[in-house]
Amino acid sequence: MTVLSEAVLADPIALTRALCDIPSVSGDEKAICDAVEQALERLGHLTIQREGNTLVARTDLGRDRRVMLAGHLDTVPVNDNFPTRDDGDVMWGLGTSDMKSGTALALWIAATVPDPRFDLSFAFYDCEEIESDRNGLNKLSKSRPEWLAADFAILLEPTYGLVEAGCQGTMRARVTTHGKRAHSARSWKGENAIHKVAPVLERLGAYEARVVDVEGCTYREGLNAVRIGGGVAGNVIPDECWVEVNFRFAPDLDEKAAETHVREVFDGYDVEVTDSAPSCRPGLDRPEAAEFVAAAGGEFAAKLGWTDVARFATLGIPAVNFGPGDPNLAHKQDERVELPRITACAEALRAYVTGAHR
Amino acid sequence: MTVLSEAVLADPIALTRALCDIPSVSGDEKAICDAVEQALERLGHLTIQREGNTLVARTDLGRDRRVMLAGHLDTVPVNDNFPTRDDGDVMWGLGTSDMKSGTALALWIAATVPDPRFDLSFAFYDCEEIESDRNGLNKLSKSRPEWLAADFAILLEPTYGLVEAGCQGTMRARVTTHGKRAHSARSWKGENAIHKVAPVLERLGAYEARVVDVEGCTYREGLNAVRIGGGVAGNVIPDECWVEVNFRFAPDLDEKAAETHVREVFDGYDVEVTDSAPSCRPGLDRPEAAEFVAAAGGEFAAKLGWTDVARFATLGIPAVNFGPGDPNLAHKQDERVELPRITACAEALRAYVTGAHR
Repeated sequence: MTVLSEAVLADPIALTRALCDIPSVSGDEKAICDAVEQALERLGHLTIQREGNTLVARTDLGRDRRVMLAGHLDTVPVNDNFPTRDDGDVMWGLGTSDMKSGTALALWIAATVPDPRFDLSFAFYDCEEIESDRNGLNKLSKSRPEWLAADFAILLEPTYGLVEAGCQGTMRARVTTHGKRAHSARSWKGENAIHKVAPVLERLGAYEARVVDVEGCTYREGLNAVRIGGGVAGNVIPDECWVEVNFRFAPDLDEKAAETHVREVFDGYDVEVTDSAPSCRPGLDRPEAAEFVAAAGGEFAAKLGWTDVARFATLGIPAVNFGPGDPNLAHKQDERVELPRITACAEALRAYVTGAHR
Repeated sequence: MTVLSEAVLADPIALTRALCDIPSVSGDEKAICDAVEQALERLGHLTIQREGNTLVARTDLGRDRRVMLAGHLDTVPVNDNFPTRDDGDVMWGLGTSDMKSGTALALWIAATVPDPRFDLSFAFYDCEEIESDRNGLNKLSKSRPEWLAADFAILLEPTYGLVEAGCQGTMRARVTTHGKRAHSARSWKGENAIHKVAPVLERLGAYEARVVDVEGCTYREGLNAVRIGGGVAGNVIPDECWVEVNFRFAPDLDEKAAETHVREVFDGYDVEVTDSAPSCRPGLDRPEAAEFVAAAGGEFAAKLGWTDVARFATLGIPAVNFGPGDPNLAHKQDERVELPRITACAEALRAYVTGAHR
């Protein structure tokens, strides 16, 4: 007896509920991945490949283009919001918004559209909510990039039903000041590294972030301190202080250009880049992408946050974010999804892959 | 067989070595306190009182004035510097400088001067190197202040043979800025509390510390950041940042005045005093103190660091620091004491309590 029965697979709302009610906090995705794999196998029209708790399924109909639908299987930790509960037109619970309502749509298309106008690939992956080197899509993009081959990808992250194109890049850097330790009763014998960080913070406060148009999408950058630390003991003049800054950069900059910019802003300081993820251009000039925007109602916006679409970008695949969840509810205790929005997104996706919208 | 034999008690250098070679890291002072207590009992001319591992011994000769000699029994943790070793005129090892060479002098005076010109009290106490509320002298100043009664006190902390008068007070305060959290990809929706700390650091950098003369001693104040912290996560605009500042203040300010000053400097910010210890006036106008300075060679200086002399000050007892150790070697792995300096300090103390210097 499987929870992902034929009836459930045929109903995006029931499928969302069923996926949400299988616990799958990051690192614990075996049960949900097994359930999805068994459901896909029963369909019979898909080729299925698995690595760890990441699955890729594909049609092989010989179409001239291939579109990827992707969603992660994991959630952030349970926060007194499991399992789901329904309240009228709203389903509450962990994963409803981020992103099992989106992942359910990929699985629903896989189950109910055996004869799409493009060849379709479906990726269901683990560990999206934790460190990047455990992310199933990231791992697959290195170990099995051919499994991800496509002309266009739709990542079903929560966008509240709007097509969000590309994504901004993100870079973290540590700006460090140096001084000289001394006993704080004889402070003039030292050099206070915390005091020296004032101009770094002033530059951040005075920083004017760019607003950039890329392919019709407006990206708004930001450069901010996200963490600060320094100090040895309550009676010691500190010899080191650091500020961790986070630069969110528009898709007209690659990581190298972003690093150059951060180093320019903090010219004269010790700057170390600690973490970085590329931006992704919107790619709406591609016909597959333009057709999808049309199917989804014609509206689109820039994606400001970083998402796994950038992993497709690094493989040369344009990608957009599109899903029924509300991005403002992601990771919140009161996470929920509106049932009519699941239905509307399902219809847009179905129209797109079947050509019914034309 | 005791290590503190009559022959050892009669020799300040041998006594320093014997005390150093009894391990007594803070919290583990029972053995050394027992040894000192037994040695004092054998002398026969002293009244001895003990609370925990803190001892007070006293003469009761009916003199019109009473002088206290005090030293702590504990050391910082062993750092590959136990037991002592001699090298020519230098004794190396844990506690040699801070402060068993000083504590040894108090015990040596107790053992060898049964007929001093003042009544003498001797305090040997535990847990000086750790948190204030475990400090034996601090505890006694609250539970048994009458045991500490005296007209003048000499604390045998390392001063390299110079009389260091009074001490500066020390106050720690936390200055906090507040903002509003937001995702760092949409930083304009938040308010960055780390950026807001820039003016706090500017005020610290621009602060002009006072140089104050009190009773002929020159005190140099300082106001410094000693620790800073803030931040929620690498992708969150932080809603709080704090700077811990340490104010070292001259003995013309009491704790209340010091707090008022700190609040004035950071006017407009959220300021919380987290820790405070009073200053101590030099008290060199007292005849007992002036006579001691004369016996010790006539030179004196202000004590800039905070020491337990302030505990005597809160009991209304003027106090100075005076000991053979080198304050710059305290808590260092290569701690050591110069044997001729032990001898010189011993002679000065003996001259003072016997009147031989006059």
